[in-house]
Amino acid sequence: MQIKPGLPRGVRDFSSETIYKRTFISEIISEVFKRYGFKPIETPAIENLNTLLGKYGNEGDRLIFKILNSGNYLSDLDTNSLNNIALKKLTAKISNKGLRYDLTIPFARYLVNHQNEITLPFRRYQIQPVWRADRPQKGRFREFYQCDADVIGSISLWNEVELLQIFDEVFQKLNIPTVLKINNRKILSGFIEEIGASKWFNQIIGIIDKLEKIGIDNVIEELKNTGIDAEGLKKIESFLRTSQEKDGFDKLNPLLSNSSTGLEGLNEITFITNRLKSLGLKKIKLQPDFSLARGLDYYTGTIFEVYALNSSIGSLGGGGRYDNLTGMFGLDNISGVGLSFGLDRIYLVMDEMDLFPESKNQNTKVVFMNFGEEEALYCMKIIKKLRDKKIIAELYPDKFKIKKQMHYANRQKIPFVALVGKNEMDKNLITLKNMESGIQRTMSLDEIIIELKN
Amino acid sequence: MQIKPGLPRGVRDFSSETIYKRTFISEIISEVFKRYGFKPIETPAIENLNTLLGKYGNEGDRLIFKILNSGNYLSDLDTNSLNNIALKKLTAKISNKGLRYDLTIPFARYLVNHQNEITLPFRRYQIQPVWRADRPQKGRFREFYQCDADVIGSISLWNEVELLQIFDEVFQKLNIPTVLKINNRKILSGFIEEIGASKWFNQIIGIIDKLEKIGIDNVIEELKNTGIDAEGLKKIESFLRTSQEKDGFDKLNPLLSNSSTGLEGLNEITFITNRLKSLGLKKIKLQPDFSLARGLDYYTGTIFEVYALNSSIGSLGGGGRYDNLTGMFGLDNISGVGLSFGLDRIYLVMDEMDLFPESKNQNTKVVFMNFGEEEALYCMKIIKKLRDKKIIAELYPDKFKIKKQMHYANRQKIPFVALVGKNEMDKNLITLKNMESGIQRTMSLDEIIIELKN
Repeated sequence: MQIKPGLPRGVRDFSSETIYKRTFISEIISEVFKRYGFKPIETPAIENLNTLLGKYGNEGDRLIFKILNSGNYLSDLDTNSLNNIALKKLTAKISNKGLRYDLTIPFARYLVNHQNEITLPFRRYQIQPVWRADRPQKGRFREFYQCDADVIGSISLWNEVELLQIFDEVFQKLNIPTVLKINNRKILSGFIEEIGASKWFNQIIGIIDKLEKIGIDNVIEELKNTGIDAEGLKKIESFLRTSQEKDGFDKLNPLLSNSSTGLEGLNEITFITNRLKSLGLKKIKLQPDFSLARGLDYYTGTIFEVYALNSSIGSLGGGGRYDNLTGMFGLDNISGVGLSFGLDRIYLVMDEMDLFPESKNQNTKVVFMNFGEEEALYCMKIIKKLRDKKIIAELYPDKFKIKKQMHYANRQKIPFVALVGKNEMDKNLITLKNMESGIQRTMSLDEIIIELKN
Repeated sequence: MQIKPGLPRGVRDFSSETIYKRTFISEIISEVFKRYGFKPIETPAIENLNTLLGKYGNEGDRLIFKILNSGNYLSDLDTNSLNNIALKKLTAKISNKGLRYDLTIPFARYLVNHQNEITLPFRRYQIQPVWRADRPQKGRFREFYQCDADVIGSISLWNEVELLQIFDEVFQKLNIPTVLKINNRKILSGFIEEIGASKWFNQIIGIIDKLEKIGIDNVIEELKNTGIDAEGLKKIESFLRTSQEKDGFDKLNPLLSNSSTGLEGLNEITFITNRLKSLGLKKIKLQPDFSLARGLDYYTGTIFEVYALNSSIGSLGGGGRYDNLTGMFGLDNISGVGLSFGLDRIYLVMDEMDLFPESKNQNTKVVFMNFGEEEALYCMKIIKKLRDKKIIAELYPDKFKIKKQMHYANRQKIPFVALVGKNEMDKNLITLKNMESGIQRTMSLDEIIIELKN
């Protein structure tokens, strides 16, 4: 007996209904990207592991899906020593390719590979799936889509302003009320410098990043393991508590007054928020939050993250500025800033809030009943004309009992059924049945086109 | 020093120019699919290996990209016996997932998994990449896109008729002159039955499939190794030579007169070609070819393959009927028929024949020069209004020398540059420079919108 086949954990099939909804989201995002002057690129699903490894931290390295080398992948190995070899070392011997883990590192690689074809500043967008061998849970999949836009080769803060305008415009079109938390890595690094803890910067950022999840007390507890002294810890605690207060922004200035880096960060946030005030935001509430850290190592300036109001789904997107992303591939001094939408999370929020429009017009408009070969050929000629008029039309392919054919129309929620028998053929007419009202009328081809176009 | 990162062999980056062209093709294909009543589905890139293995022949099994299990993939293995273990057995132990190899087997799996949600006949289309560890060469990549449409749960030949209409309509819209070779597996199996060679059917089909590539003499040579007797070989040779003649169709009837299966196949082809004659084909030349075999095991009825005229690129697509595709997953007696477009091959042909339309309207229409913060904010307010009118507009983000900003507009082939200095701001006007003619005019926002909308 055959075993019923299944899917690996964390990956999904998409039905047409789901695809209509997903496309609704991704088309809004890409349309806005385009109107802001961003151009699409795509990179392959498969990258060399030496491009991917070491870019996402140890945890990330572990979560990259690795592809077994083709052919006899053991041929270069001394199989007698296999029992002594460390797992990581063995993996490196039998696998040199992996699946795309995000869109940022492949983009950095793309920039280096194509630097001679690119004019700076370069605005690209990219909407593709990524794969992570993470433990699946609600809102977290092993295959999911990212929608990224980046501007490369410009240090102007106007780029940050535009990216936040894009967030605003997309969430306005999707009708999702959101709050956008904004911070600047310079504020964090300025402050951490102030308390003499710069050497643990990445570690501290990683811990602060968990603030939302584990709460301030646990963050302080974890920070104790870093090496920061008691006074520093006290200052961090005060910094984090101030950040979460309503008027924390104003109170923060004195805390940073000795740090030129910190003040620079503060000025940058001020520039961005002021410009956005002048230009007007429609759907996004801007909220400076100095405890926002974002886990990734490569951010150096503005960072932001967007959340749906009144939803438990979590972050719907985020981004920030990175001053040396391509440096890891030998191309230095190219600053960039980017954002990313999480398509799958946005889908969940919109589903939860019932925000998707009806997808009726994607469905078949009319199905012709099949009364036999002669009638079918006659119907196919009509169907051809309907399709030429952009009307989605079908012939029921088999000459089954009309009840069965009608059942198909009902199950598929097709709004009209056409009946063409010898009678109609003789008079060159078509009988059209409205499946909702049950009303049946006989009419000409021209009339049927008008009826179905409505 | 950093090593310049590269891409694995056989996979590609796509620039925006390439994506515009690829999208031009895929949108035509999906639009036609939709109008014929096909609904989209998508399946994940990652499938269980027990879904994929054994479905594409030994060669196919070898070419499936296999994903290394996560975590300690050696934990279930006795590492001391690793040196004795066969490669295939080891692979099965350390890898249980693979990359999608085509869209047909995942679709069969989909049908079995979702059988309770599906109403038959079920028309689905699917446009997604597939991966094969094949040796890369011209027109053959390790990551490439397939565009499939299938009708499941109907034995009516009208489905075949419609699929060939789809081919015709797509190639008409793409403006590629093509020839479509059509055959029927029943003709081949009827004939092979006649010469008493049914037990080698799959092997014989595999050899005949190479006819185009290696020529009739080599095919006969290879067929000698199967076990067919001398008389049978003679008959096959005569069959193949007759098939390639101009009026082979009529001459074939007597060759098959003793085989009910063979005649059934002949009748099916006649039904399909007659109907298509009545309905009219625009761009495809229909050519019955009884030597067409198509390699895949699962075809049982009509088979077809489409080629561009006057091009060396080879097959642009094909398809056929399979009577028991889901049988391998325990769901019997569901007949289906499908077609597949090879997006990457079509791209090559269109590129070769210079058939792509210009992609001008995807480009930025106007870039605003940056004269400083105050002017930039003023421009951003105008840009916002232009974007609301669906005009692709940009601010040059940095206040660089105008020459450098102009250079950007030139390199990006942006047709208009807007100049807004203090003068313009005072009078509420914009100076617009046509980059092709060099003509510069000062006008109001309303006028600029009309100008840019043209």
